[in-house]
Amino acid sequence: MSKVAYLDDLDRAILKVLKEDARATISEISEKINKPESTVHFRIKKLIERGIIEKYTIVLGEVARPKEVAFVVLELEKPVIEDFLGRYLEYVSRNLAMLPNVLLVAKTEDDKIVALVGAETKEELSEFIEENIQSIPSVREVVVYPVAEFKKGEDIKGVLLEV
Amino acid sequence: MSKVAYLDDLDRAILKVLKEDARATISEISEKINKPESTVHFRIKKLIERGIIEKYTIVLGEVARPKEVAFVVLELEKPVIEDFLGRYLEYVSRNLAMLPNVLLVAKTEDDKIVALVGAETKEELSEFIEENIQSIPSVREVVVYPVAEFKKGEDIKGVLLEV
Repeated sequence: MSKVAYLDDLDRAILKVLKEDARATISEISEKINKPESTVHFRIKKLIERGIIEKYTIVLGEVARPKEVAFVVLELEKPVIEDFLGRYLEYVSRNLAMLPNVLLVAKTEDDKIVALVGAETKEELSEFIEENIQSIPSVREVVVYPVAEFKKGEDIKGVLLEV
Repeated sequence: MSKVAYLDDLDRAILKVLKEDARATISEISEKINKPESTVHFRIKKLIERGIIEKYTIVLGEVARPKEVAFVVLELEKPVIEDFLGRYLEYVSRNLAMLPNVLLVAKTEDDKIVALVGAETKEELSEFIEENIQSIPSVREVVVYPVAEFKKGEDIKGVLLEV
């Protein structure tokens, strides 16, 4: 990622440790990356000041995560009054975002909505999509991509989950 | 989410605080939720033991995140030897997962691949998709959903980003 190119090797080493365990102490990090504690302390302070470390959070484990998730792409009918589409998209995506089963909502540049939804079983998931997405007025098309397996980024289930 | 229904109000209150600031001390949490420190300490221990808190991590800030992201849905040609598709899908999704611009990779139940890719500009993003996804041998269709705005879950950009 070119934008993080201004991070040097030391910054990256520290961020890698914190990504795996954000509660690691300065002395643990110092030992792991073989740099003085004062250096580690100073660099973390800088990383926070620069807005590179935004916050510390928890990742919820498998037991708490939804078992079944699906990406859903939603397209609405173009209304007669073109201007109305933007406001309706905003309204629909905000309503979706409020549902706890909806982990992620994004509006696309071509006026679609991409969502990641989760449930305990495939049946619950289909039911949820039918009742809360397919039923939205003036839906033109709903494409569902049920996830069989994550190859990268599975942790987002444990990050996005509401408690 | 029905699966986390066995979390009681106290568990949820603690998890909410930790989600916002995983470095909060026991005494800070105790004050925030108005419960004795011993209770908070015990509950966090239990939440870790039960696998509900899996790990502590950092969320990288705006400055470090890719400016432009897109969801990409990839479909491969069905090969003559049906059995080969599974192995080829596995191979392609693993290769995608290794690229730092690819934040997330999931195989779907109908043998597609959903990925979230990021770059600094729209041009870089299109170029990346063209060179690394559209060019994959026996690609049948690549659908790109460029994200205009996240309504929920934008933090995943700061969680999935490699350093």
